[in-house]
Amino acid sequence: MKKTVAVLHGDGVGQEVTEAAVKVLQSVGRRFDHTFEVKKGLIGGIAIDETGDPLPKETIDVCEKSDAVLLGAVGGPKWDQNPSELRPEKGLLGIRKHFGLFANLRPVKAVKGMSEASPLKDHLSKDVDMMIVRELTGGLYFGEPKRKTHNGAVDSLTYSREEIERIVEQGFELARLRKGKVTSVDKANVLETSKLWREVVEEKKAHYPDVEVEHLLVDAAAMKLITQPASFDVVVTENLFGDILSDEASVLTGSLGMLPSASIRSDGFGLYEPVHGSAPDIAGMNIANPSAAILSVAMMLKYSFGMETEASAVETAVYSVFDDGYCTTDVQKSGHRVLTTSAFADKVIEE
Amino acid sequence: MKKTVAVLHGDGVGQEVTEAAVKVLQSVGRRFDHTFEVKKGLIGGIAIDETGDPLPKETIDVCEKSDAVLLGAVGGPKWDQNPSELRPEKGLLGIRKHFGLFANLRPVKAVKGMSEASPLKDHLSKDVDMMIVRELTGGLYFGEPKRKTHNGAVDSLTYSREEIERIVEQGFELARLRKGKVTSVDKANVLETSKLWREVVEEKKAHYPDVEVEHLLVDAAAMKLITQPASFDVVVTENLFGDILSDEASVLTGSLGMLPSASIRSDGFGLYEPVHGSAPDIAGMNIANPSAAILSVAMMLKYSFGMETEASAVETAVYSVFDDGYCTTDVQKSGHRVLTTSAFADKVIEE
Ligand SMILES: CC(C)[C@H](C(=O)O)[C@@H](O)C(=O)O
Ligand SMILES: CC(C)[C@H](C(=O)O)[C@@H](O)C(=O)O
Repeated sequence: MKKTVAVLHGDGVGQEVTEAAVKVLQSVGRRFDHTFEVKKGLIGGIAIDETGDPLPKETIDVCEKSDAVLLGAVGGPKWDQNPSELRPEKGLLGIRKHFGLFANLRPVKAVKGMSEASPLKDHLSKDVDMMIVRELTGGLYFGEPKRKTHNGAVDSLTYSREEIERIVEQGFELARLRKGKVTSVDKANVLETSKLWREVVEEKKAHYPDVEVEHLLVDAAAMKLITQPASFDVVVTENLFGDILSDEASVLTGSLGMLPSASIRSDGFGLYEPVHGSAPDIAGMNIANPSAAILSVAMMLKYSFGMETEASAVETAVYSVFDDGYCTTDVQKSGHRVLTTSAFADKVIEE
Repeated sequence: MKKTVAVLHGDGVGQEVTEAAVKVLQSVGRRFDHTFEVKKGLIGGIAIDETGDPLPKETIDVCEKSDAVLLGAVGGPKWDQNPSELRPEKGLLGIRKHFGLFANLRPVKAVKGMSEASPLKDHLSKDVDMMIVRELTGGLYFGEPKRKTHNGAVDSLTYSREEIERIVEQGFELARLRKGKVTSVDKANVLETSKLWREVVEEKKAHYPDVEVEHLLVDAAAMKLITQPASFDVVVTENLFGDILSDEASVLTGSLGMLPSASIRSDGFGLYEPVHGSAPDIAGMNIANPSAAILSVAMMLKYSFGMETEASAVETAVYSVFDDGYCTTDVQKSGHRVLTTSAFADKVIEE
């Protein structure tokens, strides 16, 4: 197959981890006889510096002509004081909205041998394997009215039935391919949008008799993620709850530096990026752990290109490198050899 | 002093833990020469059953004639399928709004010798001592428009500058009496209300040069609560973020059954209640841990009646009972003698 991938390195360690991930992507091409054409674009702080726009028109054009987008990370102290229209994250919000990437998939999985790095006691963290499915283009992020005066401000949490239906379906479909359980998170005892959300989940449930459904209030979910993290399979929720809960979940296993994410729509087009940020403190040092970016490539192969075998090969290779006694600076283990960003990618390719 | 306390037992274990707490309150009266007149009222499920209203007019009258309110817990499976106007929690939301109880104080403190019960590794949980200050009468809970049709729904996140100012001040005042640090939590990179919130915090900061201020985005806060829980002192945030984060924080130390809360306004009037729920599975068995209800009485003594000495005496007594080798069914320890709800209260009184 021939696929075009837009690569937006972004800021900080986004540069080096994306480079590493592209190397792995190209090696998958050679190994499995695909052609991946890579086209670069600017986003985030670097785009502000070079074009005055966190999401320049040329970047949108590049992405539109591609089959998927690989993104590094955006942001850094340099742009923290910018007015809101000139902030790196506007690029991220803009690209999600422009391309209608309504489903954010965030897997969180305990990595064998890494429970030391987890804040949780071992027996709680060791079997964690969940996928948070977050609605990404609706809710408080984009609802109108949204404005601020000196004396007050308002944001609007709006959802149409269709917006809820498509993300809930996504959750059910994914659960079917995993452990067969959906936890729907809302605040139905207080919010009208949550009552509609719960109604939709109850309706959809009928079409997925093989999937077990649990409803949790968002406050209860925030507790249960800590006290019983291994009880979750697929968690489906609205935009802001998903933002909070997926970040909460991301630290449970101690493998934050290794978590990928996908932001997709129904036709297979998607944006793939590590969960970690731009880590300006270690940027340019070639020491960042590129696993999250590489695993994001695996998600791209799977969800955008339907290349399941290739995706598994990449995943397996990443975990094997750790099993073989290597590590990166963020997840050091005694007796393990620390690899640089690029050397890690080479090892993955070797595997 | 003479004080009148409205006591609303509510549902499930609310009955027995509140009884225990009232016994302790009366013993404080005898010991320190105060008169506490107790007036009962109905709230929650039991109020629905007996009057058809989760917050009957008579209950509001009783509270209005009192100096503070002690509440047990509301809710249970019996009322879970009720339409939203006839749900126990409507009583809770109603009483907060009716009395303008805009500040919810939720202390979370590690209890010596109880780190076994914490989901976190010992070194993370042992020094936790924070107070979450949650705005309780604004934001998405009450903002208009708030409605649902078949095809869509909307909730409104509204805040006036004044609503933000008074809760932020509350946070600064409390920090001054504690470790001198305020963490303000918002989502200022996305929400207009959060931008206003951050502006107000920056303004107020000037009046509290002795207090250190940290701004955290809500997603980052959800992570840091787990990875560095002991780094927090006072956390101040809006209603829904506070709902989620305070519940998240409540499980960190393994002492959920022992956490009290206060919902107050500026003139000292307040409502005090355990953080735990009505626990219908163990209701009526006289085994529930009444510590949270008793510590809620301590908060009442301190925040509504200005009785600092009395409050400390109650707090110390509760912890001493555990130190003396007793426990309750929820926090059993080998070698410790399990006490019933009422026996625990008697021990506290003895101390
Ligand atoms: C940068 C920010 C706007 C963004 C969000 O809130 O969606 C980020 O936290 C994320 O989760 O991707
Ligand atoms: C019962 C519910 C409406 C309530 C809330 O969300 O405020 C509860 O979760 C709480 O925190 O007291």
